[in-house]
Amino acid sequence: MNINDAAREAKKASIRLAATPAAERNRALEEIARALKDRSGEIVRANKSDLERSRHEKLADPLIKRLRFDEQKIAEAVKGLQSLADLPDPVGRTLEARELDEGLTLYKVSCPIGVIGVIFESRPDALVQISGLCLKSGNAVLLKGGSEARETNRVLARIIDGAARQTGVCDGWMHLLETRSHVEDLLGLDQWVDLIIPRGSNEFVRYIMDHSRIPVLGHADGICHCYVDAEADPQMALGIVVDAKTQYVAVCNAAETLLVHEKIAPAILPQLKEALADRGVVLFGCEKTRALIDAEPAGDAQWQTEYLDLKMSVKVVADANEAVDHINTWGSGHTDAIVTANRETARRFLDEVDSGNVFWNCSTRFSDGYRYGLGAEVGISTNKIHARGPVGLEGLMIYKYKLIGGGNVVEDYDKGRRRFTHRDLDEDCPL
Amino acid sequence: MNINDAAREAKKASIRLAATPAAERNRALEEIARALKDRSGEIVRANKSDLERSRHEKLADPLIKRLRFDEQKIAEAVKGLQSLADLPDPVGRTLEARELDEGLTLYKVSCPIGVIGVIFESRPDALVQISGLCLKSGNAVLLKGGSEARETNRVLARIIDGAARQTGVCDGWMHLLETRSHVEDLLGLDQWVDLIIPRGSNEFVRYIMDHSRIPVLGHADGICHCYVDAEADPQMALGIVVDAKTQYVAVCNAAETLLVHEKIAPAILPQLKEALADRGVVLFGCEKTRALIDAEPAGDAQWQTEYLDLKMSVKVVADANEAVDHINTWGSGHTDAIVTANRETARRFLDEVDSGNVFWNCSTRFSDGYRYGLGAEVGISTNKIHARGPVGLEGLMIYKYKLIGGGNVVEDYDKGRRRFTHRDLDEDCPL
Repeated sequence: MNINDAAREAKKASIRLAATPAAERNRALEEIARALKDRSGEIVRANKSDLERSRHEKLADPLIKRLRFDEQKIAEAVKGLQSLADLPDPVGRTLEARELDEGLTLYKVSCPIGVIGVIFESRPDALVQISGLCLKSGNAVLLKGGSEARETNRVLARIIDGAARQTGVCDGWMHLLETRSHVEDLLGLDQWVDLIIPRGSNEFVRYIMDHSRIPVLGHADGICHCYVDAEADPQMALGIVVDAKTQYVAVCNAAETLLVHEKIAPAILPQLKEALADRGVVLFGCEKTRALIDAEPAGDAQWQTEYLDLKMSVKVVADANEAVDHINTWGSGHTDAIVTANRETARRFLDEVDSGNVFWNCSTRFSDGYRYGLGAEVGISTNKIHARGPVGLEGLMIYKYKLIGGGNVVEDYDKGRRRFTHRDLDEDCPL
Repeated sequence: MNINDAAREAKKASIRLAATPAAERNRALEEIARALKDRSGEIVRANKSDLERSRHEKLADPLIKRLRFDEQKIAEAVKGLQSLADLPDPVGRTLEARELDEGLTLYKVSCPIGVIGVIFESRPDALVQISGLCLKSGNAVLLKGGSEARETNRVLARIIDGAARQTGVCDGWMHLLETRSHVEDLLGLDQWVDLIIPRGSNEFVRYIMDHSRIPVLGHADGICHCYVDAEADPQMALGIVVDAKTQYVAVCNAAETLLVHEKIAPAILPQLKEALADRGVVLFGCEKTRALIDAEPAGDAQWQTEYLDLKMSVKVVADANEAVDHINTWGSGHTDAIVTANRETARRFLDEVDSGNVFWNCSTRFSDGYRYGLGAEVGISTNKIHARGPVGLEGLMIYKYKLIGGGNVVEDYDKGRRRFTHRDLDEDCPL
């Protein structure tokens, strides 16, 4: 199917899916989970063929690693779908209700956004997860996977679409796009596609963000900071910095830059260096840092680098203000933490650091939908509108205003024959 | 000042303004209101000079009309600022609180978006209104007015900025951009500017939307529909259609297209035509319409026209489904109304029409922030993310996650030494 036809069909399906009862969408999720489990052999075979071809084509190791979709990963995906089915329905929630006048009532009601475009590299689990999230939230989805995973994606899409159809969910709510030109095509479909979610490397996500007129939910960089204040408890600072840097280095919420107050730096930097060196971390420091400990030199290039590796930039700062300025200048608005015993310093840091996640006395690694208890994670966003930080199903939702009257006309209010009451109500939309 | 410097300064100011107490922002709003009142003579003189020059330059009449900023309009703007000062503070509201573990608590807290870029034609009142909304919500603002209003805008900006400074609000939170190239420059400043709000004609707004990588809050077209169902009360239908079309034709929420169920069309179309003709409305109809009443021919060109005039397109449809399809195909996602006595038909219409505002048995003209009781209106949005429909101050807000711990590290949870409790709390962020 031509991509324009697929998008048009998805748009039509999104209207019907939005009006589909929750029980039906949940039944489809359960059926998809069952079908994936039943047909795991078929999926694994397709995945082996993708892996073989990719190895032959000398695909980079991290991509091959993420391409693997074995029985264990299938089981995790199935479990994810089942817990999605158990979550409360995000569609049709009355967010506000207001009597505008007797017999004229306004309801602000949650509804799906419409058509979501998903572009992902490798990771066939992203296909399962995102189509599940979209179905749960009543959105149609256009999926564009990487060619390295084409056999796996094709089997997965066939199973998911088929299982959903069996339960009576409307056709056309999901489409797999297969050719390379489809990425550019998809980014230009702003008439039909309401939101793009990219899943892949930083360069990949940045490319999408730079080439789309459709809103993009996600983040390119994760340049996260730990600031150790003059009034930090040294033991706490050590624990948090080591965790933030080393607990898992390849992820967006790992810390990349350490900022240390100049008063505490002489005492704590040698300890920090030792603890980090124990975990194999190489440090890059400013001049003041290098006067206190051994480190490679650091400058603007380091402040804007996301290492995703056992490397860390270190800067000594005059005070919390300089730390905040540094973060707002060089950070990526993702996650930044302060370690201090001073409540007022913490309050100002949390207020003034312009990031989606601002932490006091805990590790940046907590910045995650699962750890936040969101139930399901759509992604982590560094956007400043709509959804920010770890995003649950609410990132796939918007609202509409439903106004219910009995023949009311504006003329009556403009002429003063009637007056608005504007009384907030505690009730759900009756329709 | 160079636009890049202005934007950088605005960004810095936005950080400080976000942390400014509500009382201080409200005091600044009151001081601005007072200063505008005190110096209204100066404003009117500048405006007269703009009006004179614009007449001399043969500016179009509607633009000249919107350019006028006389004592009465100043008084309205002053009143608007005063009521803004009285509204509850949108900054720092705890939206969610969750215990992740004992001693590790997550707060989702509202905060300003950051730097708002406003681009407006004529209407100096837009300058006052938007800078007031931004100050109230803790956002910095870059204002680009039309050259036709340059004298007025300059005086207004000087008064507003000066009055705010007097109360101690941080410098640099507002900048007036003056040269024509500033529009293109502003649209490219995605590093500093977080949201664009355009105010002006449809063509103007569409131009902004088509040329910016920064999110744009607003709407270009308002192609609103009234659908008169087979089960409509004829008297109610007449009242609503006449109000929606004629109560004020030059606005986005006026109806442009009338859809009539074929069963009721023969009885009601002649009455509708008469009532609309009484108000001077010229009709454009489909073939079926023209078999029942006199009308100019209508086709695709009419279905996508926003007349903003005493003209209306009319189409006879087979049923509510065809009405919904027509609206989702040709509408602009703004406001659409159904007139029917059938609750189930109404429910499906409200669910399936993909517009920000969907009405049952009332006029499309109610779609407005003041009538909705929002307190202050940022604009009407046809976006499908962030804010939709009439948008109050919440359209200028986003949130951040504040996580407060006591040295917590992720390693403990990954190794199973500790477990998340994920318990929702009913409390405000203590910082």
